[in-house]
Amino acid sequence: MSTIGIIGSAGRMGQAIAKALADAGEDLAGGVDQDGDVAAVAAKADVLIDFSSPTALEANLDAAMAAGVPIVIGTTGLEERHHWLIDSAAQTIPVLQTGNTSLGVTLLAHLVREAASRLGEDWDIEIVETHHRMKVDAPSGTALLLGEAAADGRGVGLADSAVRGRDGITGQREAGTIGFAALRGGTVAGDHTVHFLADNERLALSHMAENRSIFAKGAVRAAQWLQGQKPGRYTMPEVLGL
Amino acid sequence: MSTIGIIGSAGRMGQAIAKALADAGEDLAGGVDQDGDVAAVAAKADVLIDFSSPTALEANLDAAMAAGVPIVIGTTGLEERHHWLIDSAAQTIPVLQTGNTSLGVTLLAHLVREAASRLGEDWDIEIVETHHRMKVDAPSGTALLLGEAAADGRGVGLADSAVRGRDGITGQREAGTIGFAALRGGTVAGDHTVHFLADNERLALSHMAENRSIFAKGAVRAAQWLQGQKPGRYTMPEVLGL
Amino acid sequence: MSTIGIIGSAGRMGQAIAKALADAGEDLAGGVDQDGDVAAVAAKADVLIDFSSPTALEANLDAAMAAGVPIVIGTTGLEERHHWLIDSAAQTIPVLQTGNTSLGVTLLAHLVREAASRLGEDWDIEIVETHHRMKVDAPSGTALLLGEAAADGRGVGLADSAVRGRDGITGQREAGTIGFAALRGGTVAGDHTVHFLADNERLALSHMAENRSIFAKGAVRAAQWLQGQKPGRYTMPEVLGL
Amino acid sequence: MSTIGIIGSAGRMGQAIAKALADAGEDLAGGVDQDGDVAAVAAKADVLIDFSSPTALEANLDAAMAAGVPIVIGTTGLEERHHWLIDSAAQTIPVLQTGNTSLGVTLLAHLVREAASRLGEDWDIEIVETHHRMKVDAPSGTALLLGEAAADGRGVGLADSAVRGRDGITGQREAGTIGFAALRGGTVAGDHTVHFLADNERLALSHMAENRSIFAKGAVRAAQWLQGQKPGRYTMPEVLGL
Repeated sequence: MSTIGIIGSAGRMGQAIAKALADAGEDLAGGVDQDGDVAAVAAKADVLIDFSSPTALEANLDAAMAAGVPIVIGTTGLEERHHWLIDSAAQTIPVLQTGNTSLGVTLLAHLVREAASRLGEDWDIEIVETHHRMKVDAPSGTALLLGEAAADGRGVGLADSAVRGRDGITGQREAGTIGFAALRGGTVAGDHTVHFLADNERLALSHMAENRSIFAKGAVRAAQWLQGQKPGRYTMPEVLGL
Repeated sequence: MSTIGIIGSAGRMGQAIAKALADAGEDLAGGVDQDGDVAAVAAKADVLIDFSSPTALEANLDAAMAAGVPIVIGTTGLEERHHWLIDSAAQTIPVLQTGNTSLGVTLLAHLVREAASRLGEDWDIEIVETHHRMKVDAPSGTALLLGEAAADGRGVGLADSAVRGRDGITGQREAGTIGFAALRGGTVAGDHTVHFLADNERLALSHMAENRSIFAKGAVRAAQWLQGQKPGRYTMPEVLGL
Repeated sequence: MSTIGIIGSAGRMGQAIAKALADAGEDLAGGVDQDGDVAAVAAKADVLIDFSSPTALEANLDAAMAAGVPIVIGTTGLEERHHWLIDSAAQTIPVLQTGNTSLGVTLLAHLVREAASRLGEDWDIEIVETHHRMKVDAPSGTALLLGEAAADGRGVGLADSAVRGRDGITGQREAGTIGFAALRGGTVAGDHTVHFLADNERLALSHMAENRSIFAKGAVRAAQWLQGQKPGRYTMPEVLGL
Repeated sequence: MSTIGIIGSAGRMGQAIAKALADAGEDLAGGVDQDGDVAAVAAKADVLIDFSSPTALEANLDAAMAAGVPIVIGTTGLEERHHWLIDSAAQTIPVLQTGNTSLGVTLLAHLVREAASRLGEDWDIEIVETHHRMKVDAPSGTALLLGEAAADGRGVGLADSAVRGRDGITGQREAGTIGFAALRGGTVAGDHTVHFLADNERLALSHMAENRSIFAKGAVRAAQWLQGQKPGRYTMPEVLGL
């Protein structure tokens, strides 16, 4: 059992994480939101989970380093300079940064990379995702993460292979491309399928989130795992031992 | 048992129809392709099936009228003037024209119209289709046909509601729209799914063609049905009694 | 706006209904659970929703009749004598009894009946459902309800056509049968798919519940609809105008 | 380019393999069926593919050893003594024996093993397959092969964990079990899905055969690969480098 501090505790993810901590039998060191005292929470915690905002990142990393506690960063919208800050902090403490804390998605990306590395370009790759009607961008960050895994498995770059929003007179499909399609509607928490389509046969690897609690649960598991690590920068696949 | 003549007999669909005729225990009056004698085939036939080309349509209709035999037209790429020719011929003989002769797709369109007419705009409609890597356009004609059925069920026009090729910063989904997404790869003969996505629940209505023989089979069934009809213009739903 | 009383208010569905009432902008007349005063709640209500237990049914119907208010009955495990009680009460007040209050499932059953009535026996029907790991019986009541709809569309009885739990040396599939398969695992609230499988093509009609709130929402909509009706016994399809 | 001999050439698979050889640009050394001269075909071949029958196996292995050519064995219904014969022949020549020659299924089994080894018992495993109406047994051999992969990934035996044909009052799902369900209908060549169902999220890994040509194609690829190997007994995963 460990004591975990939540940064961004008033947000939707912060609240979900507090619930996930209770479900996992962990102690809550306390939460902090904007204008709160991060150092006080860090002082009481064995590990921190940060789902606040990019603007708060530097102060949060400083507090974690001052207290000498590991930190899981699930904040989205990070830019290059934020990644430099993370790299720098990772020389002193264990830091795990990820855009998707779900264990299922993490494993799916691993399987997609594996499949893409084994199958030739005669297996066309198409990624389709469905999200709720409030989502404002397409494709989802997770679809792109899966596309990166597929491209990586093939030994190519995603930027050069991605075909997005196919519509109109497109011509025949170009070998080696990775297609993306996005559906929007209802309250879908997040469905992702990676199709591998060959002559006369098909593989499909899918993940479905029934609701958003899995992201909180994955963040807690990442925090538990991170406590035993040496200073350094980590990713979700390492939590699963992938 | 009846005797059926095939116009466009050398094409891929023409050959598939000849096979479907044999499977259905029907007689083949003979086939004709470009530069062949349509009138001779029409004279021996109880009904004609035309999968040739728009340029041959006028001569084909003339031959059917001269022989007084019904004709099924599955030719694609028809323009407005072709539809006038069909309307005119339909005053003399039974004519069935359709862009999709599959019985399964015909029924699916009927179910989609029914569902859309019963469900409010809080059920977001998204249509996704998958076809082989050689297909040059998106979305498929059948996806659009299903979209027309959905729009019709809602009492709106498809042109005003369609959202195609969603990509980038799209903003939240607009109520009442009908989304289209297209996947391409392998040798997929044709998968179509119409999703209805509401708060906390979803309906999905799907059709899958394992291969293209179903289009030939549907054309033969349409031809069988058309023989008993009075002069006029007919559609596939009437073949199924919808 | 109407005032709705909940019988069985302390149960999981009772609590979900209280939430659904608030979401729908309806007033709560009050709730009652075992040993509570049903008559007092009925006196304040425009309509009652009963998700209590079969043993309480008779007293609940008596209270509804005494107060002259319609009642929606979602209680499961009813036996023949309970249905007699309902029929009797329906001579005095409007009563809607159903095993599944979801609007999506109600529409799906309608579409399945329609499809089965249009398609011949060369379209094999297979029903597969997935539910959470705590469910103790198979197939689900909803799968059987969909099977009834399919059998009804074909004009046969389900008892004579059902094939359940296919395993081992089964021999070839018998024409006209309706197959059932059940998957169990995780926290799945309820997925149902009815497959129609023919030569070279397939139709699939599916419903997915993301969580159980849809059953509460459907019960509230049924209650709203029932207030405007004459005494009699009603079913969910009538709520949707099917 | 190599020269390949087919044993069981008159059967459905034998004919499909002859076509697959042509597609792959390989030479056909000749085919042989019952009462034919296997030794004559073996003498002209670089490698043999055997889809005949268990009763012919011993003679076929003898012919392959006499000619010193590798042999791919896709014959089903093998018993323990057949496996001894294969082990014995494998001391002299390369032998690859498998119950499923599809490359897609081979990769799927690999991914299923990997997923099962990474996920705990809180991810319930359910395997569902669909085949044409003529199939006489359930679950399919391929479903069992996938179940073996899942059990192997978990470090348990399939015999102890399999739950087949779930029906009636089953009680809650037991942790650690692997469920099997079978759908039958139409002309489905073979769909297989392995579900991993956890709290609030799901993974699904699927393979779909559009027709049976993929089994022939996989057999040819196995034959091509086998020519470069030393004497020994091999399996399909090795063909893919898994």
